[in-house]
Amino acid sequence: MATLRAEQLTSLTHTIFEAVGASSEEAGLVAEFLVRSNLAGHDSHGVIRISQYLRLMKEGKMKPGAGVEVVRETGSTALVNGNWGFGQVVAKRSMEIAIEKAEKNGIGAVGVFNCNHVGRLVDYTAMAAARDMIGVMMCHGVPSVPPFGGIDRMFSPGPISVALPAGSQKPILLDISTSVVAEGKVRVKLRRGEKVPLGWIIDKEGRPTQNPADLYAGGAILPLGGEVGYKGFGLGLFVDLMSGALTGSGCASSPEFRGGNGVFMMAVNISDFTGLDDYKRRVDELVARIKASRKAPGVKYIFLPGEPELREEERRLAEGIYVEDETWEEITSTAKGLGLDLTPYETAAVVQS
Amino acid sequence: MATLRAEQLTSLTHTIFEAVGASSEEAGLVAEFLVRSNLAGHDSHGVIRISQYLRLMKEGKMKPGAGVEVVRETGSTALVNGNWGFGQVVAKRSMEIAIEKAEKNGIGAVGVFNCNHVGRLVDYTAMAAARDMIGVMMCHGVPSVPPFGGIDRMFSPGPISVALPAGSQKPILLDISTSVVAEGKVRVKLRRGEKVPLGWIIDKEGRPTQNPADLYAGGAILPLGGEVGYKGFGLGLFVDLMSGALTGSGCASSPEFRGGNGVFMMAVNISDFTGLDDYKRRVDELVARIKASRKAPGVKYIFLPGEPELREEERRLAEGIYVEDETWEEITSTAKGLGLDLTPYETAAVVQS
Repeated sequence: MATLRAEQLTSLTHTIFEAVGASSEEAGLVAEFLVRSNLAGHDSHGVIRISQYLRLMKEGKMKPGAGVEVVRETGSTALVNGNWGFGQVVAKRSMEIAIEKAEKNGIGAVGVFNCNHVGRLVDYTAMAAARDMIGVMMCHGVPSVPPFGGIDRMFSPGPISVALPAGSQKPILLDISTSVVAEGKVRVKLRRGEKVPLGWIIDKEGRPTQNPADLYAGGAILPLGGEVGYKGFGLGLFVDLMSGALTGSGCASSPEFRGGNGVFMMAVNISDFTGLDDYKRRVDELVARIKASRKAPGVKYIFLPGEPELREEERRLAEGIYVEDETWEEITSTAKGLGLDLTPYETAAVVQS
Repeated sequence: MATLRAEQLTSLTHTIFEAVGASSEEAGLVAEFLVRSNLAGHDSHGVIRISQYLRLMKEGKMKPGAGVEVVRETGSTALVNGNWGFGQVVAKRSMEIAIEKAEKNGIGAVGVFNCNHVGRLVDYTAMAAARDMIGVMMCHGVPSVPPFGGIDRMFSPGPISVALPAGSQKPILLDISTSVVAEGKVRVKLRRGEKVPLGWIIDKEGRPTQNPADLYAGGAILPLGGEVGYKGFGLGLFVDLMSGALTGSGCASSPEFRGGNGVFMMAVNISDFTGLDDYKRRVDELVARIKASRKAPGVKYIFLPGEPELREEERRLAEGIYVEDETWEEITSTAKGLGLDLTPYETAAVVQS
């Protein structure tokens, strides 16, 4: 068992990626973003990914030092070739480009291809929010969701993230899949030997099922919406076409798609629309009204998008990040294989034992 | 009972609006868009709105001849004051501005305030698709949806429309509310004396209910997603802030909001990203894969977004548009009050009797 402080886990991750050929800047960014996902409580996007990234690097599919290349651009748009560098490096630079363009022309939009796994989208949209812009981002990946009424996997859970800055309130940080659930939540149920609720998945014949194992035996995750799942299907289709057809990554279900994430992102400069102060006042007032809403029976608290993650982050910053045995074993054996000195982390790893 | 051919209903609507002071151009556009909603099967946005519009005109809230005014702009964005003209006129001109900007700078985004009811969003996003651009539009209006876990109405069903052009396939025309259903569907159930499915609405105490009347007795429509309704809530919040806080219309739940629709729209120029031909090929191939997907038990056909409306349009173009007695009565008595000669329409109105 290991429970590490965030900065220790970040430092260890940084050290590992530098040891396998990433620059200090790249390694630092990847480490920071992976650990940030752990802090937010989204362990599926955290340090559990280290071994996957190392494997991709070994296979030559994730390339340290690959330059982020703008292959086409206008005053407000850019098409970016990620050259299969680290997804975090590519996506961060791409959002910077979107922000720069939005500063000049009110809005900036960037499409990205040849891009590895970028992690949680909200890390990038929040960059725009920190600059008094509205950040929007979507991406696609390996398909696990059928069209509404269909069985064959055709779409990734296709996340959409929106970051909306506020005044005195916290920014609103939305990051949702366009499927009922992300695959990770089904996996957790499977590992725990629990059923999934009806409406999450179908088996390989398209029948509703509560057995999470059915997903991994040719089943699929349903689009968001239940009986009105044509809405989630429509949103997933939108995400797939923006991330795949528009960027050149290819649609998730096409042979053209080579893995990683196709990405579309935007920054909208608030001060080019209504005044920034008026916008912020309106957000603050809306948040206050939401918080003051009468609650449905059994509901104790109304969470704003991003609020559960923020609470989890505060908790984990104080109490440390728990890394499950299998993942910790993987990380430490990798580190040892690279000849790294693990003493400081092994000592640190028992802060909560 | 009246069943009219589309061009007759359009001509009658045009004549009425011209008779009360609209220019021929304005009246023509309003008539065209209202009847287009009827054709698509969305009667809630069709000629049933004539009496509402006439009332707003009488009250001075809907102003023929009001100019569409760009009050702020950059190379890619514009903030538009609709000056309370016809929503259709304002929204159409605003999408034209977005398209013009996208032609120059790859993307165009327009926020609109002081705008009356615009009707179905897809009428405008389809304008972008017809120009080989991706159209995106969202708007807000009178609130009927609480935050996830809350009771108080705070958001309109907040529609989002996306129009994605294709090659040889039909364009993909998505137009969905971010609530489980639009209010009109609950009203239909009420009129028919039917129950609504569990999960559509809550009563004024926040309890789940199947009685459609509860919505009109202080209840609310639930956000999209059911048990994961925080997703629909997040999308609704996004729509409300883009349409209300960013444009200056004010959030739907704020005293600042003066009715009509706050609108945010965009056009994305496809050829400034991947090549247009490649994009279109990808869309066509994806549509073909979707159509070829194995179907879940009981499913006969997989509809793409916009396809049900297209089928209905074909049917109604051939068979005529049925206008229910109450609405037909309203329209004809209004027309007579204006001294219009209804003979041609009254004859026409019995084509299907």
